[in-house]
Amino acid sequence: MIHVVAKSIVKKELQEEYKKIASELVDMTRKEKGCISYALYQDKDNPMILTFLEVWDTMESLKAHFKAPHFTALVPRLGKMRESSEVNVYTPAD
Amino acid sequence: MIHVVAKSIVKKELQEEYKKIASELVDMTRKEKGCISYALYQDKDNPMILTFLEVWDTMESLKAHFKAPHFTALVPRLGKMRESSEVNVYTPAD
Repeated sequence: MIHVVAKSIVKKELQEEYKKIASELVDMTRKEKGCISYALYQDKDNPMILTFLEVWDTMESLKAHFKAPHFTALVPRLGKMRESSEVNVYTPAD
Repeated sequence: MIHVVAKSIVKKELQEEYKKIASELVDMTRKEKGCISYALYQDKDNPMILTFLEVWDTMESLKAHFKAPHFTALVPRLGKMRESSEVNVYTPAD
């Protein structure tokens, strides 16, 4: 299984719109093949931190996600609202 | 539910020992009340990044974890092997 942590800093005044678009992305992504879980979370101590925590069955499914129409349409819109972001793709440590 | 992402940078020469201690911590933590999942992951593109991805039922269970004997014994040992680390505690974005 593949775990993705996509962590972003989003200014308070943009959060309502950010969460609305993220919600569309979540709804459509959860219907994708190989998506085990996908949701947006907020840091308990710093509400500017909004993070997608994702689980995928294989790298192939994750790669297909990057080409999905909702991904290519919505993620650039989210990108414009971020102050910064970092994405880590994880596999279990051996 | 509470999600924790505890991300650390660990030098290559310390990773074997780090993973051994982490494995003890994982085994014992999974037996704790309220621990839904707990495991160590490695970044696919940067193997120096080792991250615990955790799910807890409540903040109370997470707080109890910080006081567990295996946590107070093992986490400082892991801490000494880290170049840097960051911990985020997440709740679902509203």
